[in-house]
Amino acid sequence: MMKKNIGSVVGLYPTPVTIVGTEIDGKVNWINIAHVGIIGIDYMLLSMNKVHYSNEGIKKNRTVSINLVNQDMLVEADYVGIVSGKNVDKSEVFEYFIGKLKGAPLIKNAPVVMECEVIDIYDMKQYDNFIVKPVNTYVDEQYLTENGKIDYEKVKPILFEMPNRQYLRTGNVVAKCWNIGNEYKK
Amino acid sequence: MMKKNIGSVVGLYPTPVTIVGTEIDGKVNWINIAHVGIIGIDYMLLSMNKVHYSNEGIKKNRTVSINLVNQDMLVEADYVGIVSGKNVDKSEVFEYFIGKLKGAPLIKNAPVVMECEVIDIYDMKQYDNFIVKPVNTYVDEQYLTENGKIDYEKVKPILFEMPNRQYLRTGNVVAKCWNIGNEYKK
Repeated sequence: MMKKNIGSVVGLYPTPVTIVGTEIDGKVNWINIAHVGIIGIDYMLLSMNKVHYSNEGIKKNRTVSINLVNQDMLVEADYVGIVSGKNVDKSEVFEYFIGKLKGAPLIKNAPVVMECEVIDIYDMKQYDNFIVKPVNTYVDEQYLTENGKIDYEKVKPILFEMPNRQYLRTGNVVAKCWNIGNEYKK
Repeated sequence: MMKKNIGSVVGLYPTPVTIVGTEIDGKVNWINIAHVGIIGIDYMLLSMNKVHYSNEGIKKNRTVSINLVNQDMLVEADYVGIVSGKNVDKSEVFEYFIGKLKGAPLIKNAPVVMECEVIDIYDMKQYDNFIVKPVNTYVDEQYLTENGKIDYEKVKPILFEMPNRQYLRTGNVVAKCWNIGNEYKK
């Protein structure tokens, strides 16, 4: 196979799309964030440009919600990434409930929602990188396995890729990890 | 829908599986890392437990490679996550080439490979969180669109989810982002 050097391109996609929920000046706000990650196994990362209105609420409350997205809510999920809470009231785009934490509204129709505490902010010039810990995770019962784990094959979270600005679906399970590697022969 | 509170569970999956390539004491080593993310748009995060042998090489060289995984290389990809370079020579599991950077071997058969510089390390008690910048990204020509972008629908990167310790495939494109949201009606 011939490889082409396409330069300094971040190719680490697709990533899960999330709707990040906040409260600012007593009003709920939502934004679509897919530059996310997992850090230190128990924590998650939200990398958010400082221009966003939501950052202010997260910094003030030190709480935030992370809501996974499925296909049924994709129009709304994309919409809250197009318009800013500075200009548009997005509080009614999703029905929500409040869990244990103030400032972390949870989307009723999202398959997996997490209310989170901000543990730290890794600062970059133009980005607030929020390191957060889930305090409670709520899952629609239809998306749980018999063992009470999140069934990603059923949730089929919507994923994002930047190069072509597209959403993709999560596909099917292909193997068990720390397992299929045992078939390796030198 | 009824939601069940499953406690403090990191549910932000699936994430792309990567093979992280390093060089330690003059020998190439590989490890499977899926606790990854995108940070500050131009950078990537690798969150790696400090017990791993690879961390030493990354810290010393301040370089590393990130290689996406497709189904054809999944047995080898899982294998390098099962055995440690402390005990097993994994240098020959993948054929590789060297780009511009020393210490960042690139897998010939991986669809998308990036040679990266370490920009910073965000330290946690048990984890080194490497913030890295791609210097060059190499893509098999069959996986590029007509515009020279990575075609994730063709690459179909293998994804990981922790709750059930499984690999999934990337599914198909379902919508354009910053676009489908325009269909939203109050």
